[in-house]
Amino acid sequence: MSYFNLSKAEIESEREKLLKQYEDYKNKGLSLNMARGKPSPEQLDLSQPMLDSIKSSDFCISEDGTDCRNYGGFEGISESKELFSRILEADPENVFVGGNSSLNMMFDTISCFMTAPIYDDTVAWHDVKDRKFLCPVPGYDRHFGITGYFGFEMIPIPLNADGPDMDMVEKLVSSDKSIKGIWCVPKYSNPTGITYSDEVVRRFASLKPAAKDFRIMWDNAYAVHDVTDTPDTLLSIVDECKKTGNEDLPILFCSTSKITFSGAGVAALAASPLNMKVLKKRLQFATIGYDKVNMLRHSKFFKNYEGLLEHMQKHKKILAPKFETVMKKLNENLADTEIADWTNPNGGYFVSVNVYKGTAKRVVELCKEAGVVLTGAGATFPEGKDFDGKNIRIAPSFPSVEELSLAMDIFCVCVKLACLEVLV
Amino acid sequence: MSYFNLSKAEIESEREKLLKQYEDYKNKGLSLNMARGKPSPEQLDLSQPMLDSIKSSDFCISEDGTDCRNYGGFEGISESKELFSRILEADPENVFVGGNSSLNMMFDTISCFMTAPIYDDTVAWHDVKDRKFLCPVPGYDRHFGITGYFGFEMIPIPLNADGPDMDMVEKLVSSDKSIKGIWCVPKYSNPTGITYSDEVVRRFASLKPAAKDFRIMWDNAYAVHDVTDTPDTLLSIVDECKKTGNEDLPILFCSTSKITFSGAGVAALAASPLNMKVLKKRLQFATIGYDKVNMLRHSKFFKNYEGLLEHMQKHKKILAPKFETVMKKLNENLADTEIADWTNPNGGYFVSVNVYKGTAKRVVELCKEAGVVLTGAGATFPEGKDFDGKNIRIAPSFPSVEELSLAMDIFCVCVKLACLEVLV
Repeated sequence: MSYFNLSKAEIESEREKLLKQYEDYKNKGLSLNMARGKPSPEQLDLSQPMLDSIKSSDFCISEDGTDCRNYGGFEGISESKELFSRILEADPENVFVGGNSSLNMMFDTISCFMTAPIYDDTVAWHDVKDRKFLCPVPGYDRHFGITGYFGFEMIPIPLNADGPDMDMVEKLVSSDKSIKGIWCVPKYSNPTGITYSDEVVRRFASLKPAAKDFRIMWDNAYAVHDVTDTPDTLLSIVDECKKTGNEDLPILFCSTSKITFSGAGVAALAASPLNMKVLKKRLQFATIGYDKVNMLRHSKFFKNYEGLLEHMQKHKKILAPKFETVMKKLNENLADTEIADWTNPNGGYFVSVNVYKGTAKRVVELCKEAGVVLTGAGATFPEGKDFDGKNIRIAPSFPSVEELSLAMDIFCVCVKLACLEVLV
Repeated sequence: MSYFNLSKAEIESEREKLLKQYEDYKNKGLSLNMARGKPSPEQLDLSQPMLDSIKSSDFCISEDGTDCRNYGGFEGISESKELFSRILEADPENVFVGGNSSLNMMFDTISCFMTAPIYDDTVAWHDVKDRKFLCPVPGYDRHFGITGYFGFEMIPIPLNADGPDMDMVEKLVSSDKSIKGIWCVPKYSNPTGITYSDEVVRRFASLKPAAKDFRIMWDNAYAVHDVTDTPDTLLSIVDECKKTGNEDLPILFCSTSKITFSGAGVAALAASPLNMKVLKKRLQFATIGYDKVNMLRHSKFFKNYEGLLEHMQKHKKILAPKFETVMKKLNENLADTEIADWTNPNGGYFVSVNVYKGTAKRVVELCKEAGVVLTGAGATFPEGKDFDGKNIRIAPSFPSVEELSLAMDIFCVCVKLACLEVLV
């Protein structure tokens, strides 16, 4: 029954029923955390064999003859560059392999441009006092954290089912020289799980920015992270930009954080020769080279890109039932109330739920009191400002299916309760 | 015989003799590299057992219960913080454990202060147009590379046998607000191998900088890297600064790059709560946490600080004969010529040789033609400017004793030849 057709008395009775359920949950003294997109221990266990892929009896020599234990190998070992070039769909020579975090590489990229002009006739972004960055919303809080830290004004761009509102992006980017970039999670976007359509990717590749040094931060974090048998496909931004002569627009990022170990994976970026020149000018002073033994460990474990894709099937097996559980619970408990809507992604790490306008904060609060920790309401917006107060990110990967099932029951009760508190 | 007492005829005959030797060496078609302070394969082999310290059958759980494979553990696992606090002689709570490179942490620290003011009433260094950094010379080229990249004017400070010329440091630092810091390798300095005296450390701790945001970059890269049985000792800058109330002056760095694997070690920094607050404000956006599995791997391998010191004895066994070889060859071939002088360090990775004024470049060139690659002449000075043209850094760690012995013979011939070319 739609909550919007309820009489005052029905609302009261529904609320009483829910409050009773809520109290029962609260009394269980639960402690479930769905705040972050963390792989479960079971997923991490999938990569335990990797720990044996370099033993004390092994030589740590890469394909190109580098002793991975010693200094050197600035750009990463060749087998790593090759592997990441497949994930990022970029030429290996345009790939730079880093440490354990693509977030760190994104931070360093923005940090680089803060003090180093990209072109001879542009200035360091630190010197652009009204610098701005476009932020598709809902989006990834840690992206917004980076540009927030560096003092950018962040302009929210609605993220639709096929990607960011490109009319708005084109209009802003072509008219405002102080807009220096945009954050994108083009495949299985964090948190809505949508994938940019071919049309959207082509429009990105065709942008005519007013700022010569405008850059697209293309965080392909979930490039190979399907959870259903009908996976999305993403057009290659590198290929499209080649066609439009806009090779310097995008900088691509990815990592094995959600492939092997989130705390001990390998990250990489891909960039055009021009962008790479600016980044390497910095990197050559910032490092002699990142952890090559861990790069080799990964390459030996996967053998090749096909091996990595096979490995992802094992993640899918673990994650699919969790996403199905979230869908089932949302459908069962919320569909007919008409007070919420949500995405049904084919991959990634999140489900995005829009609850009744203005109640997101209350839902998160109610959940917390019942022992279910969610991502903070508003976190998916720059500076936490969700003006509609309705978006909540569900991260189903870490809990077990049983825990998740219970957590979703509680979540749905809280969504309904928070709405009724307003409707009453 | 002193070259300065030779007659013209004696010079000619000596030169002819040396040229013949040089041609003989050249004809051997050698290829020896002493350019960088790289550990030898034999040294790296010492840490091969570390590769087994976490196997697929092991749990990757740190002392404080963190699953090292997953996200989290921002500051590093507690056992790593403890281990590095011993090396750096700082409180564990003031230690932050990073990735595989202390150079990278130093770069990030300067990068942080470039865009983030340390105090409310100071400005980001990027906005200090005439920013300057003090550079004890000869020093570490990669330090100078960082401040050079960030546009600092670098002021060379003579490095004496007991540390930098503190009269000069005190005078400059107390009078010029645009001087923002100084690079220090306080123990077994790169490249001279000297250790700062107690008096010098105390004078550092007592500095009264004109710039409130002046910082000492205290790179204790060779804290536990002795090569003789008469090791140097270094006064704790942290303790001394506590006494003077100058806790915020130094930021300390170290790594296991020359303890385990140069390409896959663990690095750390120590800083006062105030400095740490500024750095962490940045780091919380730059990373979710560095590679904790590698931290755990190291901690399991060493067990504790005493285990690490034991491990260093094995390095000493390999390195001592190499340093002895360098000393023996320099003494045998150059002492009585009086055209060169050198340091005789008790630890570290380098020997610093001053050849005849103005001939360093020529010596490096002659060596290269005979197949011996040395660190570029001038590299130990900011922007490569060795105004006396006499300093050359010898890195004896990588070649075998036999190779090193031959390389030093060639080096000494080149030093003499280059001098005679001028004296003739």
